[in-house]
Amino acid sequence: MEEHHVLGVDGGGSRTRCVIASLSGHILARGSGGPSNPLTAGFDCAAEAIQAAVEEASRRCGINSFEASVMGLAGTERASAMESLVARLTLPDLGNLKIIGDAQVALAGATGCRSGVVVISGTGSIAYGENDAGETARAGGWGWRLGDEGSGYDIGNRALIAALRDHDGRGPATLLTEKIRGVLGLGDLDELVDLTYRGNMGSEEVAALAGLAGEAAGEGDNVALRILEGAGVELGIAASAVIRRLGLTGGFKLGLVGGVFNLGPLIRMSLERSVRRTAPDCVISRPRFPPEVGAALLAIRDAGVELEDELLHTMEVSFEVLMEASG
Amino acid sequence: MEEHHVLGVDGGGSRTRCVIASLSGHILARGSGGPSNPLTAGFDCAAEAIQAAVEEASRRCGINSFEASVMGLAGTERASAMESLVARLTLPDLGNLKIIGDAQVALAGATGCRSGVVVISGTGSIAYGENDAGETARAGGWGWRLGDEGSGYDIGNRALIAALRDHDGRGPATLLTEKIRGVLGLGDLDELVDLTYRGNMGSEEVAALAGLAGEAAGEGDNVALRILEGAGVELGIAASAVIRRLGLTGGFKLGLVGGVFNLGPLIRMSLERSVRRTAPDCVISRPRFPPEVGAALLAIRDAGVELEDELLHTMEVSFEVLMEASG
Repeated sequence: MEEHHVLGVDGGGSRTRCVIASLSGHILARGSGGPSNPLTAGFDCAAEAIQAAVEEASRRCGINSFEASVMGLAGTERASAMESLVARLTLPDLGNLKIIGDAQVALAGATGCRSGVVVISGTGSIAYGENDAGETARAGGWGWRLGDEGSGYDIGNRALIAALRDHDGRGPATLLTEKIRGVLGLGDLDELVDLTYRGNMGSEEVAALAGLAGEAAGEGDNVALRILEGAGVELGIAASAVIRRLGLTGGFKLGLVGGVFNLGPLIRMSLERSVRRTAPDCVISRPRFPPEVGAALLAIRDAGVELEDELLHTMEVSFEVLMEASG
Repeated sequence: MEEHHVLGVDGGGSRTRCVIASLSGHILARGSGGPSNPLTAGFDCAAEAIQAAVEEASRRCGINSFEASVMGLAGTERASAMESLVARLTLPDLGNLKIIGDAQVALAGATGCRSGVVVISGTGSIAYGENDAGETARAGGWGWRLGDEGSGYDIGNRALIAALRDHDGRGPATLLTEKIRGVLGLGDLDELVDLTYRGNMGSEEVAALAGLAGEAAGEGDNVALRILEGAGVELGIAASAVIRRLGLTGGFKLGLVGGVFNLGPLIRMSLERSVRRTAPDCVISRPRFPPEVGAALLAIRDAGVELEDELLHTMEVSFEVLMEASG
């Protein structure tokens, strides 16, 4: 009997990743492409990026026909947006195709499709969870203008504001001022106004400044330390809101996803302190699988296969082998 | 001997106002026009708005030739922006023309061209001051993306964020949620995302929501009360930074300008508490003159006339008469 396969895709504002896996849980190939959030990249670019990622993976393992496909994509909450995107895809045989939110596939990856919560903090931030009854809840994720508290954007933006407050005497002195001046090549910090409003500094560029906060915190800068601590508290508040609304108790998994958790231990520590008040026994960890593998897991389940521990273990081992092979 | 006259203009993001005064301090006429911040309205519209305001005032008093003119305009910090604007003005005889910042004319109006500090909080916010040595300092005023703490935009934005935090369980319940849903005509608060990012809700529209915070605070809503209190503290911090940098002491005047101070007594109270720590004896009050009269005062001084108390008194009385006449 010929084995059947599934496709898992994770697409966001900066890149797209996919995996092809067998129904028994062997991950056979990976592929990657450019940004595929249709709201920021546009529908044509988003479709092209997905196409490129899938074609790369197909080329590597010789499989381009799928029993089921799951794509986790940012910016496709509205049905019309989803349709516009699907209409542009010219992939041969995606089987039963589902397009869902990027947070959903991240959760599936983080927990291996078990109930639990994932906190994602990259350029933006969101907490998303699911309980045993299949109910879901989210908190945050409202984008850079309406919050995204604790995100890379939020940290970068607070770093900019702290530098201006140092500059005009409203706030304490901070290493961030010189770091920002240096990185952005500003003669005077006043030039930041030009850069932001006339230069249309985007949320990705602001988020890129979060690294400076991590750096300054590492050098003991109090302002930067407070910014990172505050980000952890905010992410903890978002996680706690989801936990409460889903009635999660006991040792469920709380996965932490995204580059913000690489900015030093302080963010995770303050998140943990904040979450422990609501859920003292939850297991806080980095995700078991990346989101694209989470998408593949959901596709396997959609194809009617039970996600038993052995299958998850197979996924884990085959993904590691693949990662090592690609160096 | 024929009497000579001056022109004073105050232009901002929502409107332009001007007065024509004699060198002895009699205000003869007022005029108004549309927005004249060239950064937001464009240079052509800004020039037209100024033109319209001045022509209206000229028509009313029959005077269109000036010894000196002072225009306080937002968004003309750069010399190139100022030149672009002046090149578009076709007013007959402005005499010695000076274009300065909107905060400078507001300060001149608030203090009657004495040393002191003005805190302006409308759509944006800024603190600006001048000491007896003629040194100046500003704090804040970095625009909606980089701060404008304590401004109408800031208050409106915090109201939006508080509603979303109520909505997704991260924050306490607040009357703001229903008020915002009602005013913006949203079926579900999730629609706010569409409105903000795809509808490009501008900073003026966000600032317009500050009124809801004032309303909710008046009804005892704790979240709204905290937002207004926080705004007052922030404006106090900005004023204190300016006071410290200028070394102001004793009974100097601190003028409060802008619509935010009409949102209820709490903002002023918390500003006052915050400022008193730095400057226990300063005199906090609404401005003596509006900014366009401040501009005229500066123009009279530019024409070589000393601004004695009698002249200021003449200004005050003639302005009142004019306001009453225009109903």
